[in-house]
Amino acid sequence: MIQQLVDFGAYSVPGFALIALAFAGFKAVQTAKQDPGTEEMQTIARRIQEGAMAFLKTEYTWLAGFVLIVAVLLGVANSFGGPESDQTPLIAVSFVLGAVASGLAGFIGMRIATLANVRTTFAARKGMTAALAVSFSGGSVMGFTVVGLALLGLGLLYIGYVEGASFLFPSASESVNPLSFALNALTGFSMGASSIALFARVGGGIYTKAADVGADLVGKVESGLPEDDPRNPAVIADNVGDNVGDVAGMGADLFESYVGAIIGTMVLGLGLYLNMDENASIGPIVLPLLIAGAGVITSILGTLAVRTHEDGNPQHALDMGAFGAAGLTALATFGLAWAVWPEEGIKTTIGSATATVQWWGVGVATVIGLAVGVAVGLITAYYCSMGKKPVNSIAMQSKTGHATNIIAGLGVGMESTAAPMLLIAGGVLASYQVAGLYGIAIAALGMLSTTGIQLAVDAFGPIADNAGGIAEMSHQAPEIRERTDRLDAVGNTTAAIGKGFAIASAAMTALALFAAFSQQARLGDSGIDILEPKVMAGVFVGGMLPFLFSSLAMKAVGDAAMEMIEEVRRQFREIEGLLAGTAEPDTARCVDISTRAAIKRMMVPGLLAVLTPVVIGVTFGPQALGGLLAGVTVSGVAMAIFMSNAGGAWDNAKKSFEGGGFKMPDGTVLEKGSEAHDAAVVGDTVGDPFKDTAGPSLNILVKLISVVALVIAPIIAVGGNFTPLWSLLFN
Amino acid sequence: MIQQLVDFGAYSVPGFALIALAFAGFKAVQTAKQDPGTEEMQTIARRIQEGAMAFLKTEYTWLAGFVLIVAVLLGVANSFGGPESDQTPLIAVSFVLGAVASGLAGFIGMRIATLANVRTTFAARKGMTAALAVSFSGGSVMGFTVVGLALLGLGLLYIGYVEGASFLFPSASESVNPLSFALNALTGFSMGASSIALFARVGGGIYTKAADVGADLVGKVESGLPEDDPRNPAVIADNVGDNVGDVAGMGADLFESYVGAIIGTMVLGLGLYLNMDENASIGPIVLPLLIAGAGVITSILGTLAVRTHEDGNPQHALDMGAFGAAGLTALATFGLAWAVWPEEGIKTTIGSATATVQWWGVGVATVIGLAVGVAVGLITAYYCSMGKKPVNSIAMQSKTGHATNIIAGLGVGMESTAAPMLLIAGGVLASYQVAGLYGIAIAALGMLSTTGIQLAVDAFGPIADNAGGIAEMSHQAPEIRERTDRLDAVGNTTAAIGKGFAIASAAMTALALFAAFSQQARLGDSGIDILEPKVMAGVFVGGMLPFLFSSLAMKAVGDAAMEMIEEVRRQFREIEGLLAGTAEPDTARCVDISTRAAIKRMMVPGLLAVLTPVVIGVTFGPQALGGLLAGVTVSGVAMAIFMSNAGGAWDNAKKSFEGGGFKMPDGTVLEKGSEAHDAAVVGDTVGDPFKDTAGPSLNILVKLISVVALVIAPIIAVGGNFTPLWSLLFN
Repeated sequence: MIQQLVDFGAYSVPGFALIALAFAGFKAVQTAKQDPGTEEMQTIARRIQEGAMAFLKTEYTWLAGFVLIVAVLLGVANSFGGPESDQTPLIAVSFVLGAVASGLAGFIGMRIATLANVRTTFAARKGMTAALAVSFSGGSVMGFTVVGLALLGLGLLYIGYVEGASFLFPSASESVNPLSFALNALTGFSMGASSIALFARVGGGIYTKAADVGADLVGKVESGLPEDDPRNPAVIADNVGDNVGDVAGMGADLFESYVGAIIGTMVLGLGLYLNMDENASIGPIVLPLLIAGAGVITSILGTLAVRTHEDGNPQHALDMGAFGAAGLTALATFGLAWAVWPEEGIKTTIGSATATVQWWGVGVATVIGLAVGVAVGLITAYYCSMGKKPVNSIAMQSKTGHATNIIAGLGVGMESTAAPMLLIAGGVLASYQVAGLYGIAIAALGMLSTTGIQLAVDAFGPIADNAGGIAEMSHQAPEIRERTDRLDAVGNTTAAIGKGFAIASAAMTALALFAAFSQQARLGDSGIDILEPKVMAGVFVGGMLPFLFSSLAMKAVGDAAMEMIEEVRRQFREIEGLLAGTAEPDTARCVDISTRAAIKRMMVPGLLAVLTPVVIGVTFGPQALGGLLAGVTVSGVAMAIFMSNAGGAWDNAKKSFEGGGFKMPDGTVLEKGSEAHDAAVVGDTVGDPFKDTAGPSLNILVKLISVVALVIAPIIAVGGNFTPLWSLLFN
Repeated sequence: MIQQLVDFGAYSVPGFALIALAFAGFKAVQTAKQDPGTEEMQTIARRIQEGAMAFLKTEYTWLAGFVLIVAVLLGVANSFGGPESDQTPLIAVSFVLGAVASGLAGFIGMRIATLANVRTTFAARKGMTAALAVSFSGGSVMGFTVVGLALLGLGLLYIGYVEGASFLFPSASESVNPLSFALNALTGFSMGASSIALFARVGGGIYTKAADVGADLVGKVESGLPEDDPRNPAVIADNVGDNVGDVAGMGADLFESYVGAIIGTMVLGLGLYLNMDENASIGPIVLPLLIAGAGVITSILGTLAVRTHEDGNPQHALDMGAFGAAGLTALATFGLAWAVWPEEGIKTTIGSATATVQWWGVGVATVIGLAVGVAVGLITAYYCSMGKKPVNSIAMQSKTGHATNIIAGLGVGMESTAAPMLLIAGGVLASYQVAGLYGIAIAALGMLSTTGIQLAVDAFGPIADNAGGIAEMSHQAPEIRERTDRLDAVGNTTAAIGKGFAIASAAMTALALFAAFSQQARLGDSGIDILEPKVMAGVFVGGMLPFLFSSLAMKAVGDAAMEMIEEVRRQFREIEGLLAGTAEPDTARCVDISTRAAIKRMMVPGLLAVLTPVVIGVTFGPQALGGLLAGVTVSGVAMAIFMSNAGGAWDNAKKSFEGGGFKMPDGTVLEKGSEAHDAAVVGDTVGDPFKDTAGPSLNILVKLISVVALVIAPIIAVGGNFTPLWSLLFN
């Protein structure tokens, strides 16, 4: 063990954060100074950017109110901890900062993504290499802004709380370690990030599909305009939706997972620290911060390694960067764990026995986490990829009509839950076996340590997608469209892998937070026994939530789409000369209306997610809340995989008929416009709210409920001065 | 406490069983001696009956092999129990008898149902009253045969094992009570019943939809024949399907729940008995048998009360009978509990405290179970009923096309999980609070004690449905068809309620079996701590199973339907004069082919259900298996509600356009044949495998896994001489 690294470690984190931010800034400048193209291209791009910013403005206005209310509640609720409690109202400060950091990252990332799209279109004139460079640079800004702001906030708060401990936590006595206060206060940061993620993913998910439906139904079907026609008032909103959902939404999602995994691991590290008898080392608390720091460096190296030549496959370039960074981080984790872990190992309980966790166990857990994340991503890609068996089976079943297409898609989605769930279960078992509960959290962090490049790859997709749209709208030459199409196809694959990865990381993060919750709620001795009916009842309620939440999200899409449709119809009716092309549509109003509709309609599912754990925890106590977490995690992860993959598979089953057509086993070729293609279009439409609204929102549901539980854990802790309402009722 | 009732109680059970069987026989004779109608009607009815019997013959042939193999494995695996174990190879005997009893009940019930259908058609000439009497009599035979054979088997085995204890269980020493051996041996009866249910529900569910699709697609769409045309070779198979799925399938499902709830309660009663210090009373073991006996009598009274006058509503008559019987049983339970419960109550642990369960607590638990069952049934009916908001919302969304119809149906199905899951969670909490784990089991039994009349009401539906089909095929007068239609409409409502009831009772039975499992696996002290990763991994695997199982079931329907389609096409091609009506179709071959296809394709999902708990239990031990049970129960119940209700709602959304048409909110009326109706037909087709195959099969999955766990509990019990493979691998 290198004591100085342990002591100094955490203080280096803001430095790594600034490196990440500097790299993001460098990439932002690099992107911005690219040629933005012709006047026509710039006009279109400006509208998309204005729309995206309008969405963020409305979202953040609502968010500000939400964050303030919750911050006050958090501050007040944590002001009455007894002497044995580690409650502190500072948790409200962390909460606000977490929300601000995630919100700022979303703002910057989306701003740059909406600059990068048009520049990618223009760069495609020069060739593939240039187009990839611009779009991936744009994505990198999102990736490294998320990582940088997350680490900056976490690092500064941790240092501030620990350094100012005697001043900030005056009630810290011998019975409660100041580090307990500090880490408990820090959990608010994770909850703040979760709140943004809730708005970005659920609100953004509703927005993007409402705009999509509005643009398609009134513009294309009713008015006969072609796709992406500038006369369609909703077409800008539709393009905005891609950014809102896939850039800002995914960014906030991974921001939440990243922060959740780091904090979850730190809290479990605190548990190890408090249990050490002599020579107690804060190594386990500092290690996650150091791994995250190393991840910044390896992600930058990976990003720099992404380059392709004109005939090369951009996919390989991206893979090399991402896998390279992951491999380097795994190596670094072994080194860091060796450096900060006590030589004699740390004693903990594994199963019913006492075991000693060694530094290499921590390294192995990282590798397990990485392997599970990559494997789940690849499985997702398999189930959603054109030409593979699952998608082909849906395309084949489209021949006998709409119903068989739908049944096949639902079947594929359900089947696709099996391998990922088994892998996650295996990952949990294996990482626990090598490093206890801490190992599970480290596995989650292993998945997320290279969030910088991972998110860069994810955000590259919608930029390439937008670039293609701008090329189409501004009537570029065919070879340019062809290049952006190739990039877009790569983006679809990375998006599929990214979605699987996001679900797997959400699952592991939720489990890490769950373990941290159980420690903070002092459930270590009593455990959470499923045989206790209140726990089982909690599992039932938790298992039901993802179903209710999904139905609310899908219904919200339908209702918001209706408002959008009304507005588009109104503009066609009231703005003279719109269809003739002599008048401009009021695209901003469309954006505004669907923004408001989306934000309004995410309130009920949002409140459900925030309030359920509080109500269950306060009424029935921490064990029942533990049951709720288990139920919501398992059923939420299964439903998320089911819905995301069914949606992705339907999408590509439809695409199978486009281009050269789909070849049936008997040799006949079914093309676009065939009845089978019609059926596949219906499947794709059903899949849209599945894969872009309900599915990704479940990631947030699962993590948010876990982090709320962690935050309220000290309040409802067993042995504290809190009496569950339940016991008042019955005893 | 009336000691003589405690001592004698169990010996009265075969008597009650014989009363039930005698009543079934009386009703069977009553049904058989009705006029079977015209020659034409009889020919059609004979074909349906032959088809149903052909299905059963094939099913039972396969079953016989399955039962023999499992019986041998069970016998062998239970021959090596140590001195502390209560394993006994007699479990294999119970297993075979359970399978035979359930199989025989299915055979008799279906035989009479296929007699009753045509007699109902003929009775409808006289009027509604007569038609209701015949169809309900037919249903009663199924109901009371199930109850009678279940109680006869259970009663005789229990008496035999207890009386022959010293001879049968020579290894019974002071450390293991002979009652433990007896009850452990008895659990095999429940597993036998589950095996039949698996074949009947999963195989029958695949069969019925494959035949349906074959009849519709080739007969109606390709060859242009009207519905139920006798020239269509698959039309008989289609009508057979109704009997196979809704009579035999539902019968085996409730047989399994009934037996499972009784045995689960008895095993938990054993736990109370073994924990009593002085004056140990077997009251808690005998009570479930006595409640079941009382349920026979009240069900008979209820059945006799079902009568209507010509203008009356048959629904009210059925409700009066069923609710009356339930109310009487609840009263009887209070009386019986008072009579067999020790005056000083029985001490047990509730939560972390020691509590005393009094006789009235047991009565209250029964009422809670009944209330939850009825409430879940009514909620299901609400979500699936024409004219109610959920179904109307789907009908409205059909106007904008196929995709919105599908999304609305999926949304309704998901939403409909919320209230039932909350009710079940509340029922678990409340019944535990008044009577401990025993209370949860008693609540399950409360739901199921009136299975006799409940199942009679359920089976009446498909008989009325068949009667309508026969009326149509044999060209009866319109007023006859109108009467059978009214009966059929009532049957649809009772079927919806019955489905919800079946799911709720499956959930409660699974929980009762779960509690019994934990006791037999000696998990009382250690509990099943979700914080242990092997438990959490078990929850993940369990939570995934219903998704995988459903996808396999739906895929099986598609594949089996394909075989059916091929056969129907072949007959049209090869049998000359078939379409002209001069040659007869080979309906038996159609039945045979789809039977084989269904049975073959249920093997993989069936083995998945049987083997998973064994593999998890043996590899990772009882705690992990407990996690698996929790996961599969929660996710399985949610998925079952989701799929059943989505399917039911789609069905009635389609029917909303038939008759007078569906009135949209803007006043326009959309009729059969409109585009909206087309969209609704697609929804209905998607819903068919949801509600008739996958959904009901999940009931079985959940119970089967629980009962397998209970059966293998002594083998993998903690503290036994068994070492889980897991610990060999890692320690």
